[in-house]
Amino acid sequence: MNLLFFLTPKQDVLYIYEDFTLRQALEKWANQRYATIPVLRRDGKYLGTISEGDLLWGIKSLPESASAWEDTPIASLPRRKDYKAVPVTTGMTELLRGVLDQNFVPVVDDRDMFIGIVRRTSVLDYVYRNFDHEELVQNAGRRRRAPAK
Amino acid sequence: MNLLFFLTPKQDVLYIYEDFTLRQALEKWANQRYATIPVLRRDGKYLGTISEGDLLWGIKSLPESASAWEDTPIASLPRRKDYKAVPVTTGMTELLRGVLDQNFVPVVDDRDMFIGIVRRTSVLDYVYRNFDHEELVQNAGRRRRAPAK
Repeated sequence: MNLLFFLTPKQDVLYIYEDFTLRQALEKWANQRYATIPVLRRDGKYLGTISEGDLLWGIKSLPESASAWEDTPIASLPRRKDYKAVPVTTGMTELLRGVLDQNFVPVVDDRDMFIGIVRRTSVLDYVYRNFDHEELVQNAGRRRRAPAK
Repeated sequence: MNLLFFLTPKQDVLYIYEDFTLRQALEKWANQRYATIPVLRRDGKYLGTISEGDLLWGIKSLPESASAWEDTPIASLPRRKDYKAVPVTTGMTELLRGVLDQNFVPVVDDRDMFIGIVRRTSVLDYVYRNFDHEELVQNAGRRRRAPAK
């Protein structure tokens, strides 16, 4: 079991480029309804993440005329939080830690090129389906189990 | 260990009422940056949840003049998804299932009155801190453990 098992590859991920205007971002984003999506540089490197909230509060802070805000570059909007990217070699424990805080974990290669994401749902659903959660919850914190053979 | 251990009580929760206008909602919401918050009826009953994305796409679909959109009642905006509320008697397994899909689980009493929320972070952080995750991940799906004494 490793990260690649959970990877959604770049071609299946909704992302935008850092030089997009608000209009371009909204057009690409519309009807998808992801709360947060990756922002890439034109050379394919991972830059960070932008959320529906970043757009909402960004638009709210702009002048009122629609033409003004639609031409605003998204690079000029504050981004609340850039999700931390990880390399493909990342172990399951760190991956699990990542999806506790983030809707997804961006994955990069050794040149920092964006190659996809691991969605929170895919990791947590897997863990939930496969563990003995009744026992886990009842015993959490009481004892540590001996390592399995 | 039960739900109350994880409850954030109503007085510490950012929520809005269903009869708020967009302006009222944005004013209350600003500087908090929760992606999704509860919507209550004036009598205190739980109605559903609204997200930053609901506001963003709602505003985008409205006429352009600012005064028009600020006076729009939030009740007229489509809400993508209303989080499912649970009673205080909900067990840990169902609570855990709930926070896999939702940022928080709304909690209601036996009259459907909203009494607070359980945040995803509080449950998942607890589980993560207390379980033997290396073993869990390595052995997930291979075997079921015997019940603890």
